[in-house]
Formats: sequence, structure tokens, C-alpha cells
Amino acid sequence: MTDLHVPLDRERGGLAAQIAAELRGSIRDGRLAPGTRLPASRDLAADLAVSRGVVVEAYEQLVAEGFLVSRVGKGTHVAAVAAPRQAPPPRQDTVCAPFYGHRPTSPDLSGFPRERWLASVRHVLATLPSDALDYGDPGGVPELRQELAGYLKRVRAADVRPENLIIVGGVAQGLSLSLLVLGVERLAIEDPSSPRQVPLVRRAGATPVPVPSDDEGLNVKALAASGADTVLLTPAHHYPTGVVLSPGRRAELIEWGGVVLEDDYDAEFRFDRDPVGCLQGLAPDRVILSGSVSKSLAPGLRLGWVAAPEDLAAAVRRARGELDLGSPVIEQYALAHFLRTGGYDRHLRRTRREYRRRRDALVTALNEELPEIRVRGIEAGLHMYLELPEDWDEAAAAAAAQALGLAAEPVGPMRFSPGPPAMVVGFARVPVHRAAEAVQELKVRMSGQSLD
Amino acid sequence: MTDLHVPLDRERGGLAAQIAAELRGSIRDGRLAPGTRLPASRDLAADLAVSRGVVVEAYEQLVAEGFLVSRVGKGTHVAAVAAPRQAPPPRQDTVCAPFYGHRPTSPDLSGFPRERWLASVRHVLATLPSDALDYGDPGGVPELRQELAGYLKRVRAADVRPENLIIVGGVAQGLSLSLLVLGVERLAIEDPSSPRQVPLVRRAGATPVPVPSDDEGLNVKALAASGADTVLLTPAHHYPTGVVLSPGRRAELIEWGGVVLEDDYDAEFRFDRDPVGCLQGLAPDRVILSGSVSKSLAPGLRLGWVAAPEDLAAAVRRARGELDLGSPVIEQYALAHFLRTGGYDRHLRRTRREYRRRRDALVTALNEELPEIRVRGIEAGLHMYLELPEDWDEAAAAAAAQALGLAAEPVGPMRFSPGPPAMVVGFARVPVHRAAEAVQELKVRMSGQSLD
Repeated sequence: MTDLHVPLDRERGGLAAQIAAELRGSIRDGRLAPGTRLPASRDLAADLAVSRGVVVEAYEQLVAEGFLVSRVGKGTHVAAVAAPRQAPPPRQDTVCAPFYGHRPTSPDLSGFPRERWLASVRHVLATLPSDALDYGDPGGVPELRQELAGYLKRVRAADVRPENLIIVGGVAQGLSLSLLVLGVERLAIEDPSSPRQVPLVRRAGATPVPVPSDDEGLNVKALAASGADTVLLTPAHHYPTGVVLSPGRRAELIEWGGVVLEDDYDAEFRFDRDPVGCLQGLAPDRVILSGSVSKSLAPGLRLGWVAAPEDLAAAVRRARGELDLGSPVIEQYALAHFLRTGGYDRHLRRTRREYRRRRDALVTALNEELPEIRVRGIEAGLHMYLELPEDWDEAAAAAAAQALGLAAEPVGPMRFSPGPPAMVVGFARVPVHRAAEAVQELKVRMSGQSLD
Repeated sequence: MTDLHVPLDRERGGLAAQIAAELRGSIRDGRLAPGTRLPASRDLAADLAVSRGVVVEAYEQLVAEGFLVSRVGKGTHVAAVAAPRQAPPPRQDTVCAPFYGHRPTSPDLSGFPRERWLASVRHVLATLPSDALDYGDPGGVPELRQELAGYLKRVRAADVRPENLIIVGGVAQGLSLSLLVLGVERLAIEDPSSPRQVPLVRRAGATPVPVPSDDEGLNVKALAASGADTVLLTPAHHYPTGVVLSPGRRAELIEWGGVVLEDDYDAEFRFDRDPVGCLQGLAPDRVILSGSVSKSLAPGLRLGWVAAPEDLAAAVRRARGELDLGSPVIEQYALAHFLRTGGYDRHLRRTRREYRRRRDALVTALNEELPEIRVRGIEAGLHMYLELPEDWDEAAAAAAAQALGLAAEPVGPMRFSPGPPAMVVGFARVPVHRAAEAVQELKVRMSGQSLD
């Protein structure tokens, strides 16, 4: 059990965030070594004269971020890290990556097609044979796999048949099941990458190995040098930077020869040119594609898919059959109906048009009011990547944006190596008429902050 | 790579079942040792002059049963077994435990309350705030946890608050997540037990340790001697025998002091006396209760719960937050509405009455037509345990029952030590007017068989 020195500024408030930031810093710069056992939350709370809940919140945050691991009855330890960090990252007082709730990639849920969805559910309940409500195929209902195979071929140039598809509860489950059945031990991930990836990868039994990503996407030479034989990436629209994997890098990646887990999380939204087909269509024998309706319809539906080579799809199906027996069937049939009757395509056309208008309004306002911010990664998806002036505190900027109702995340906690201040902002929920005002308010808050 | 001798009777058909039976026998009697690598399906198919699909089907069956383990790229191996089997069980030519589809415990799905369920979904879609469709609490929506806590207290005498409850995709997921976060290495299970438990337990990283079960339920002395510190059991209605754990054994189990995973899979249906409260209500600090609506409403809904001590519930919630981000929200709200408005209780009262009539009709018919069969385990649940005459082939009897449309499973594949011939038959889908006829047909088929 280690003794911790955690200086607290009680005037400033946010005690849990202060504790988390201090511990995060200590882990990053090596003062807290991998495997070190932390004090029980009760003990640390007593030492610091804070309530136990404050310490629990800080620990949970760091567990969610992958800095700590916690096992019931075995206490909380510093996680093992795959690659040594070269230097402490520039900012430590980060805003939390929310465990749930609104994300920068969340769609505008006030646009969820409630009436149309209800109509599909009504159709299903009126026509479904009773047997379809029994224990179902853990790989998903055949009608949905059929519709999705057609959709993914048409829209994503995927190389899939219903036999390659497994219906899952979203991209997260698709990835964790894929890692499980592949038995991946070391998984290359992009640096930076979503703060939600590291805990998922660790929980699925693999060690994340960060590989640098630049203006063309993942650095494939660095990937080859990493020794990992499997990589997880977001080629259509990198999170957080929004970079689209360049044609050269796509070719290099296919040549590389390892297994690719393709996270196709927001590929429906591409604004400035035709969508780039998914990698899976190029190398269906080595690429496992995961996608979902979380951005196109709603995250709360928990409906997604994995497209994989047939033997691997069979292994994923078997794993689901053993672990949780598959996804609920009524909404699978409803989605199949929604796809078949054209409701899905209509909804996408309508929302894509509206999101493009919102994106343009926010970009215009940022260029006019805050030209010192460089806006990037806006060709696709529902978020933008904002490179901030060097003297800005990205955590403060993200907190200010959040306070204005924008879904924002600082990039620091997504980095494995230092980088300039930046934040991610979602634009799907910012109405056109609100964009200029929101940016003006952000400007006021940030100029106020730098006067402090 | 081992060379296999697999004699096939091509006249008899069912080649995959023959191969599976032969391999199962070889594994059980030690001719195929744990860890032995099996030939590739392609090679064995060529050796036996059968199609590759036949061998794949046999291998998949044995993987599902836990005799073989298969890892992509690493081939198929004989699984390690925790306890040595004392002797080959009497029957090897077993009927498959179906990977999905109708089970002896499935409810009558023609009685699923489609109109009422649709009304609940309609209510939810009309009233739900948009934010509720975003990334949700991976522990489940608060409204449902609130309703379920009340229901489980009232009906199951459980000791739960919403904070102890995690919504999951059914009992299987509840068990696999519990095993994962507890880090169980050796898990005591009942002998006999559901053929679907062993693959689940292995997949969740634990080694099943069979412990004998008798007329009073699990033998707690044998449990204590097994060295396992965690046990999985079905105290309200043991599967397959239907035994209710006796008061003496309940007390012994609580005294034993280990962690208990309580599978409360069909506790809603209790016919001859008041329901026995769940074990969790006795020792909420050490019992983890898993239940679902699979028997009360429909397996296809994939909606269930885990009630656990608060720190463990938090760990399960975190694991779901990392692995799959929780269950779909619309049907969680619909179930909360269905519970709140009394629809669930009404549905249970109606179905309980009908199931009781069906049970009585089938028992009467069996006693009249086939008095040589001993009917057991009918106080509760949706299946009965039939002890067959010594000279009956349980696999043939189960196959005959299946051919008549009854959901039946032979007990042999559920046993870890030899036992007399028996089968499980579900009665939920056998209408009262069909019971006598079905039993007469079974009698004809079985007497025909013993003439062969």
C-alpha cells in the first residue's frame, strides 16, 4: 500500500477532478509504478479529509480511463501500460470522459423518428410468428442480416453476405467480442484515440499498444514496428482528429498483413464528397468491420453489427450464444422493416442535410469570432476537432463549451504522447440559429479565463 | 494431431450425431485426453468420406457441450475437465441440446401479450425525453430498476434496492458478467445441470466443478469438500430434476459461507404452495441473484437482472459500460411501464392458471398411459422430470417426444456421473386437449422402439 501526497486546492472546488488529475500525473510520470496498490478509498478520504464519495469518483474516473484497474476484493492498482510514455502530457486537469450521456459523436435525438419506429414495431408485433419470440439465433435474426448485408454492400462497399454478419449491441460489443474470439494479446490502437477504447480493450483481455496517427491517419510503419499483429482503427473518420485515412495509408495497411478491426462508427455522415468505401471491402479475409445505428438513429437502441470472415463470424456467434444469447429480437425485426421500407434511407438523407447546415454554421461562426482556433476533421461525422491557441487550457475550454451545452471533450486524456491543446466539439445538437451565439459566449468565457 | 477411429453406420443416418457420440464417448472414457488436438474438419471429413459440414456440425455440438474448445487459428482441442469422471455414463447417443430455439423451459409464446406490450412501447415513445435515447446508464434505466426492486421484494422476498440492481440481457449475461467481475477460477455447479451452463462457465473463464445434487437439492457437504469458493445453483426449481432446495440445505448453504450465484430462472411459476423466497433475501451480502422475463414473457426480449451487493453491482455495471454499454433502453422503459401498470402481474396470473391446467393434464395422461414413468419436479416451473424405465433409451425417448412436438431433452448430457435414464419435458406449450393424445403417441413410439 502506497502513501500518497495529493495537494488539494479547496478554494477551487472539483475535489474529485483534482485528485484524479494528481494521480493521473503521478502514474504518467512514473511516480506511481504499474502494479502499485492504492489506499482503500476510505483511508485516502480520511487522509485528505474529504468524503469517501469524492475518492471513489476519482478512482472510478481513472479506472474508466484505464489508468487504474479495480477487482472486487483485490483493491485498486495502477494498470500496466504497454508503451512507456515519453513525457508527461502538457495538461492534467482534464474534464471527465463521461461514462454515459451525451458525447461529441451523439446524434440529435430530438430527430429520432419516433412515429416511424413505432410503426415498424407495430408491424413486427402484428406479423411475427410466435416462435420468433423464443430463444433466437445468437448471431441475429436472418431478416435483419439480409437487409444489412444489402445496405452495407450498397452504402459502404462492404464485401458481405448474411453469413458474415453478426448482430450485436453496438460497436463496443462488436469490438469486445472480436478481441475475445481472436484471443488478441497486444492490440495496436491509434494515438490519440477515444478515451473509451482503452478500458474496453483491457477488459477484453488485450493490452493496448498506441501507434501514432498524423494528417494521413495511422502511421503504418510505426504499426509494423510495434510488433502487434492486430490493429483497431477508425479509417472513415478518425476519433478525435477527424482525419480520413489517406489512400496511400489504406494501401500500406492492407499490405501490412495483420488483422484490422475497422470501427465504422459514423460513416453514414460524409458531407463534402462521396463516402469512401470501408476497408473491409478491400480485404474481407482480414478486416473485421463493426458498425451500428448509434449515430444514424440512437445510441439507446444498442443495435450494431460485425462483418467478419465466415469462420470468425461463426466464432463470434458462438461466443454470444454462450455469454448472453444474442440481442433482443423485436427491435431487430423492427430495424429490418425500417431498412426494407426505405425509412432508414429517408431518415439518413434528412438528417445528413440538417447536420451539414449545422456544421457549416458552427464553422463559419468559429472562423469569424475565434480565428485563432483551427477547425479540422469536418469532412465527415458529427464532431469537429479544434486546435486551440498554445496558451489555452484545453480542459478549461472544454468545460466552458460544456457549460454552454455543447458536447465537448479535451484531447489530452486521449493522447499517449504530448500534443498541442485541442478539443473535440459535437455539432449535431447545435441548431443553426444558435451557432453564432454559442461561439460568442465561448469567446467571452475564454477571454475571461485568460485574464484570471 | 491425433488419428481417430470413428465407426459410422451409414444406413442409420444422422452422421454428425454419430461422430459426436463417438468423440464424446472417447473423451469421457479417456481415450481422447484433455488437450489433444483434433484433426482439421476438412481432414477428418476426407478420412471418413463425409462432407466437411458433417464434421463441423459434430465439432460445434461438442464445443457447445464443453467437450471441445475451439480457438480461431489454433484448431480444436479436447477441453480440460475439472473432475475426473468415474465411469462412462450409460448412454452416449444423445439428442442435441439445441443451440437456440424451443427449450423445455420455454413459455407458450402464442400467449405473449402483444397488444399490451405494444401499448407500453407506444407510451414510452410518446413520453420519453430525447436524452433518454442517448448513451444510457450501463446499469439500466432508473425507472426499471425502481419497479423491479419493488417487484423482487414483493414476489421473491429479495433484499434489494435499485442501487443493487443491474439490468442485463437475461440470466446468461447476468451469470457471465458476475463470473467475470468476481474473477472466479473454479465454480461449483450442480450435477446434473443444464447443458448450456458448462460452455457459459468456461467462456467466462472459470472451470466448472460438478457437485452432486439429490432429492433435497445440492449436497452442501460435497460442495464444502470441493474446494470451490463460489457455487452456481437453481434453488427455486433445479434444472433438470425440478427439485426445490430443502430448508435444511438452504441453511447449510448459507452457513457454508462462499459466494452463491442464484439462478432464479423460472421462479414465477409455483403451483402447489406459496413461492419460496429467494436465497438472496437471506444473505444479500453473499448471494447474487439472476433472473429474467424469459419464462414470464419471452426469451426473445433478452431482459433480465442481477441483484448483487452494492460494490459488486457497481463492478458489473462498469464491466457492461466497458464491454457493451448496456441493454437497449426503449424496451427497458416498456417493461417498467408494464410492471407499473399491473400488466405484468395480470399476465403472470393468467399464464400461471393455464400452465397449471396443462401440467395437470400431462401428468394425468402419463400416470394413466405410462405408469412405468415416474413424474417428478412438478411443483414449479414449466418442465417436468421423467424417470424412465431402466430398459428405455433416454435419447430415443427424447427424440420420440420431440417428434411429437414436445420440447424434450435427455438427461445424460447433463450428468457428470452416471444415472438412470431420464428426460425433461416442457409442458407450457402442450394444450390440455392434446395431452392424452401426445402421451398415447409417445407410448406407441416407445413400444415400437423396444420391439426393434
